[in-house]
Amino acid sequence: MTVTTPQGFRSAGIAVGLKSTGKPDLALVVNDGPAPASAVVFTTNRAQANPILWSRKVAQNGPVRAVILNSGGANCFTGDFGYETTKLTAEAVARELQDPTADHVLVCSTGLIGTGDQTFRDKIVNNVPQLTAALSSDDTTAPAAILTTDSVEKTEVHEGAGWTIGAMAKGAGMLAPGLATMLVVITTDALLDGDALDRALRVATGASFDRLDSDGCMSTNDQVTLLASGASGVTPDEAEFAAALAGVCDSLASQLQADAEGASHDIDIEVRGAASIEDGMEVGRSIARNNLFKAAIFGNDPNWGRVLAAIGTTEAAFDPYQVDVSFNGVRLCHAGAPDRPVEDCDLTPRRTHVMLDLFSGEHTVTIRTNDLTHDYVHENSAYSS
Amino acid sequence: MTVTTPQGFRSAGIAVGLKSTGKPDLALVVNDGPAPASAVVFTTNRAQANPILWSRKVAQNGPVRAVILNSGGANCFTGDFGYETTKLTAEAVARELQDPTADHVLVCSTGLIGTGDQTFRDKIVNNVPQLTAALSSDDTTAPAAILTTDSVEKTEVHEGAGWTIGAMAKGAGMLAPGLATMLVVITTDALLDGDALDRALRVATGASFDRLDSDGCMSTNDQVTLLASGASGVTPDEAEFAAALAGVCDSLASQLQADAEGASHDIDIEVRGAASIEDGMEVGRSIARNNLFKAAIFGNDPNWGRVLAAIGTTEAAFDPYQVDVSFNGVRLCHAGAPDRPVEDCDLTPRRTHVMLDLFSGEHTVTIRTNDLTHDYVHENSAYSS
Repeated sequence: MTVTTPQGFRSAGIAVGLKSTGKPDLALVVNDGPAPASAVVFTTNRAQANPILWSRKVAQNGPVRAVILNSGGANCFTGDFGYETTKLTAEAVARELQDPTADHVLVCSTGLIGTGDQTFRDKIVNNVPQLTAALSSDDTTAPAAILTTDSVEKTEVHEGAGWTIGAMAKGAGMLAPGLATMLVVITTDALLDGDALDRALRVATGASFDRLDSDGCMSTNDQVTLLASGASGVTPDEAEFAAALAGVCDSLASQLQADAEGASHDIDIEVRGAASIEDGMEVGRSIARNNLFKAAIFGNDPNWGRVLAAIGTTEAAFDPYQVDVSFNGVRLCHAGAPDRPVEDCDLTPRRTHVMLDLFSGEHTVTIRTNDLTHDYVHENSAYSS
Repeated sequence: MTVTTPQGFRSAGIAVGLKSTGKPDLALVVNDGPAPASAVVFTTNRAQANPILWSRKVAQNGPVRAVILNSGGANCFTGDFGYETTKLTAEAVARELQDPTADHVLVCSTGLIGTGDQTFRDKIVNNVPQLTAALSSDDTTAPAAILTTDSVEKTEVHEGAGWTIGAMAKGAGMLAPGLATMLVVITTDALLDGDALDRALRVATGASFDRLDSDGCMSTNDQVTLLASGASGVTPDEAEFAAALAGVCDSLASQLQADAEGASHDIDIEVRGAASIEDGMEVGRSIARNNLFKAAIFGNDPNWGRVLAAIGTTEAAFDPYQVDVSFNGVRLCHAGAPDRPVEDCDLTPRRTHVMLDLFSGEHTVTIRTNDLTHDYVHENSAYSS
């Protein structure tokens, strides 16, 4: 159980033929209340898929009743026909749920951009009755149905005092700030209003998904949805709920990092001594997006020179000749010069910790990324074929 | 002949053991006048190698008399010792040339960051007499001595009306705006002052090297030097000279692109209809730096969706749903929807042309890049070992 661990939710996942493998590819999460509330964050990419265009409107219409998600096609840049497909999908869900309007139904899609033809539409819309018929309050099938190139399901549960949070996520590439290429649905039976949910969600995603930068590529389809049913009748302390939600998002971000396409190292870049959070983010991302650094990690080479070359392109406050750089706890560069020999550092473990101290302030930011590998190139050069 | 094609120059290249292969790794270009003038542009990376720190001062001291260049070690982040090495190198050159001051001697280094120990110093400084003894006005050995992972020498010559330009370059990776990872020396026997050279050089590099973005990584050691001897006695029309210089730089940039590490496609991204040059640059670079796009090209996949996803992260003026995208002359996306089938497009040739029209203005900018290949990952994961 995941999104149905909290009371007041049903979900389902079925196969409708969008994936050539025949694996499940259509999921639905329904919020049965009794006090539905919701918050949603979307990709900041200006190139937005039809489900994003639709769901942005839905998010402004009050509590979301249901989220339908498909893998096997992004329905992005598919023109007016694609937008109509999204609308027809939401309408089909509303009809089956006997909700008077489709305006409370979010739609999420993931897969190849440009995919969204008549066949795609028919497979989704015509199978909504079968999907709603499969809804269950102890469902375990939804998390698999949203996966694309993911190798494992990503789920998380948090047990509060009389309330719970459940979550599922998909994402394995195109992971970058402003969110990753990911779809996330988080449910809770806590009794909270939309404003409280929105505050908690923005803080949580800002500290988790927005600091995950696997390959520097931002998606057109990202959507993170938080649904509250109120079914527990318990209103948690807002800070306590926010901390729990942040923990759930952090866990999911870590799972996304660990399953990133083709990666052989999960790299946490910890930037200490930053003058501001923004500076720490900029410095961390400049490293996370540097292909030479990423390829070096793949080769188990603690190439601190590439770290310094990367951060030198930023406008953050620091003196490049006063920075310390450590790999897996071994300080290799001190004050702009070699410190310990690189042979002292072992990069063979998958988990990799790069720490740099800018000596410019009190802020610390950790950016999660992955290495650049042959498998990454292979998976992303052969994806659409 | 290259940098010695113009009158008034001598050059040399020798092997001093910096490269483990035993290949030539130390070069010198001397401007014998009679009317020496010079202009230099440097990397904009804040992490700057010792040769850059030294050469920035030299560039302000009036005409450059000589440029000494080594491959096999960047002398970057090597502390005060490394800076002293650069200074001793310049002093050794000045001594051998019987120039009263080292302040007219530029130093360029390229290779691994963090490399610059006593052995590195000795191999360079102690061999300067041998290097100057090898100087010749019909030298052909210098271009090879500045190469690192390059597979071919990069040179260019332009014949004007009574004056000539000669040039040599090195660079095969870490190629990104604000210059590439490259060292370039350009010579001319035209009679021009430093201000005229500087104006022409900035225009030429802005339209060539600054639009080359092979892998998004900016170097710590880049330096482009233009030396004029005045030996022809001819002062060309400034616009004519500037055009010729731009042509030389454009040819070198194209040669750098063609020799980029591990690349299997040379990709010209032509952005039309941009509201400004800056917009066109930002849009072009966002594509050139998108690993998913670059991997797709490696797989001969004309993935126009990744082009749109990339440009959606920019702040340039355009409507993502009004953009056209063509690959090798075949329009695959029109007004935010699929146009011709991707099967109509053949990406097997090495030369790849991606054209997008933003329909937002009159400016056109072409950014040169390369694909992301297994060989790129291999070369850059094994480079320092």
